[in-house]
Amino acid sequence: MELKGKVVVAQGGGPTAVINQSLVGAVLESRKFPQITKVYGAVGGVRGIIDERFMDLTQETTHNLERVAVTPSSALSSTRDKPDQKYCEEIFKVFRAHDVRYFFYIGGNDSSDTVRIVNEQAEREGYEFRAIHIPKTIDNDLMVNDHTPGYPSAAKFVAQSFIGVNLDNRALPGVHIVVAMGRHAGFLTAAAAVANQSPEDGPHLVYLPERPFDVDSFAGDVKTMYDRYGRCLVAVSEGIQDAAGVPILARLMQTERDAHGNIQLSGTGALGEQLANYVKEKIGLKRVRSDTLGYLQRSFFGCVSDVDQREAREVGEKAAQFAIWHNVDGSIVIERTGDYHVNYRLVELEKIAAKTKLMPDEFINKEGNNVTPEFMHYLRPLLGSDMPEVGRLRAPMVTPLHLK
Amino acid sequence: MELKGKVVVAQGGGPTAVINQSLVGAVLESRKFPQITKVYGAVGGVRGIIDERFMDLTQETTHNLERVAVTPSSALSSTRDKPDQKYCEEIFKVFRAHDVRYFFYIGGNDSSDTVRIVNEQAEREGYEFRAIHIPKTIDNDLMVNDHTPGYPSAAKFVAQSFIGVNLDNRALPGVHIVVAMGRHAGFLTAAAAVANQSPEDGPHLVYLPERPFDVDSFAGDVKTMYDRYGRCLVAVSEGIQDAAGVPILARLMQTERDAHGNIQLSGTGALGEQLANYVKEKIGLKRVRSDTLGYLQRSFFGCVSDVDQREAREVGEKAAQFAIWHNVDGSIVIERTGDYHVNYRLVELEKIAAKTKLMPDEFINKEGNNVTPEFMHYLRPLLGSDMPEVGRLRAPMVTPLHLK
Repeated sequence: MELKGKVVVAQGGGPTAVINQSLVGAVLESRKFPQITKVYGAVGGVRGIIDERFMDLTQETTHNLERVAVTPSSALSSTRDKPDQKYCEEIFKVFRAHDVRYFFYIGGNDSSDTVRIVNEQAEREGYEFRAIHIPKTIDNDLMVNDHTPGYPSAAKFVAQSFIGVNLDNRALPGVHIVVAMGRHAGFLTAAAAVANQSPEDGPHLVYLPERPFDVDSFAGDVKTMYDRYGRCLVAVSEGIQDAAGVPILARLMQTERDAHGNIQLSGTGALGEQLANYVKEKIGLKRVRSDTLGYLQRSFFGCVSDVDQREAREVGEKAAQFAIWHNVDGSIVIERTGDYHVNYRLVELEKIAAKTKLMPDEFINKEGNNVTPEFMHYLRPLLGSDMPEVGRLRAPMVTPLHLK
Repeated sequence: MELKGKVVVAQGGGPTAVINQSLVGAVLESRKFPQITKVYGAVGGVRGIIDERFMDLTQETTHNLERVAVTPSSALSSTRDKPDQKYCEEIFKVFRAHDVRYFFYIGGNDSSDTVRIVNEQAEREGYEFRAIHIPKTIDNDLMVNDHTPGYPSAAKFVAQSFIGVNLDNRALPGVHIVVAMGRHAGFLTAAAAVANQSPEDGPHLVYLPERPFDVDSFAGDVKTMYDRYGRCLVAVSEGIQDAAGVPILARLMQTERDAHGNIQLSGTGALGEQLANYVKEKIGLKRVRSDTLGYLQRSFFGCVSDVDQREAREVGEKAAQFAIWHNVDGSIVIERTGDYHVNYRLVELEKIAAKTKLMPDEFINKEGNNVTPEFMHYLRPLLGSDMPEVGRLRAPMVTPLHLK
């Protein structure tokens, strides 16, 4: 039985490089069906629904949609609102008034929770309704999914950053600490390890939020690598904590505060700088720098995995197909079925909503300061077909005349 | 008359994305001449010469050299050493012992000064010798040159960063302050303006070291833009100073120190964070973030201007041609001869050495808070052929039912 009515597509939370592929996938597929009376885009996520800020995407050209698909960051704009029961009732009221029968929400685990609550409201009121959560997050922390759209491109950015920074650190040796995103899950920071292509390459150390971070072991690790290679490149997740669950930034600032008085530090660069200062003081090295990759990780225009683009497009398209052909609700998940093949399944929203997936143990080495080959095997196919390759000189050295 | 002997090529100072193009251009061209007995690469810049650390690039395959050419960061490694007279005499001693008759040094204005001193030493000793400085710097601050190899690719990275960050700031509005490199010259930060492609696009404000920075005018500018667009993206050079020549970071920290006690801040992220805090307090806005582009600007692997690649290759090739065909010394400069064509000339080393070019007045607007169309006209052809294009939705909005 065909369910006639409108479609609303929305984008929630932080943008990714491929989030518009999912939007365009859902829109173009929805537009093919005669029972779909209109395809609306909510401007500004769920907030746009409540404010009735809809763009009529039935009147957008296919050509322009394809241009939007390859543009990073949420074309419909987003929101940080996390709807509660009451908020979701408001959403449902708007849907009912506009005869919206299909809702596709592209977002992370919070967004999937919103979809769940709105869906329950519709059921309670006996309103025929299909709601699908389309996965998206650069953190790669959604349950059930092998990986999530947005992660491969962000990982590619982190990888290409570290490939470059490793060559830079090689040309002008020293200690270089680079902080990547990841409050709870270390997947994004772990992608730094792609730069490790020959034995002396960095990152020589990779610290993830999944393992307790000890500042003294850290300093010892850096010294070991510096003594071995004459330089040391370190990848650090912003979310690293000590064994008691205290964020390392807070710990290091505490140390400094005791020594020098009242110090206030905040914002994105502070963790890297504090770690750099610690290495300088503790090991007595001069050339220690830090970088914090920041928002570029999710927004840089020009570093996209083609595998990610394809999959982001397909999860959007599958959302429309599941809802319209099969009359079912749920969350689309990516399942890895081969090396490398994927399939898309629909799972209950409860399995995704408000839960966080972490790096499995087999992806992290015993010392807790690097990744394993298992992780590299997992990551490699996601980066797509055009990863840059490093050229290195390999001519013989000239015998010196020993003039000095 | 043919001057028979060895060639030494070296790379100095901070790496760029295309510095190996110049290396490979000089090496491949030099290898064609029968009077060139060997082509050596100094490992680690001038320090490598003194230590007799030479790689015999006559024994490097052409294929591998071409792979190295498209790899960022100095393949021969670099140095921060700034040779004085005595250091240059040591260099010359090594050259003489190895029968080096040609010296090509790829670097900024310090490197050109080194070439000048070594060359003078050779003249004093009546040693037949040709020395050429090959320009390189992401700061674009070499005299005489229309622009310098390395700048276009770094500018492309800054531009692509801001295109992405602008879309991100549009999707989740607020104030976003992004700090780019540039201690004295603002060319690199100014490239942020490429992101300004439709009227509401950021960066809405661009602050350069060439103009005194006033924190109160800054706060006023941000408020004006925020009131107008509901958001504000700001590009800031790391080198901004007040009218008295005091770095803004020092000023803002002073303010904080007076208010809260003894505060120590250092490192790359501090300026952006201090400016963000200032905006938060002064204008009372909550969502204010900062990012600092850092070392990625010169090392990111995967963001290169094809025009920059071509020109970097050609200045290396021209260095060998001038020295070997014409028996002359000097510094290669890029001259813009059309829109867009360039020619390469050789000028006296004194014209380049230890001097700094700044942004000309016509590239900066009257208010000193943005660039002019003249600058955009100057920059555009340098970015090359594959700048990403932004797609934007332009479907009509749906008339609301005014349910609230």
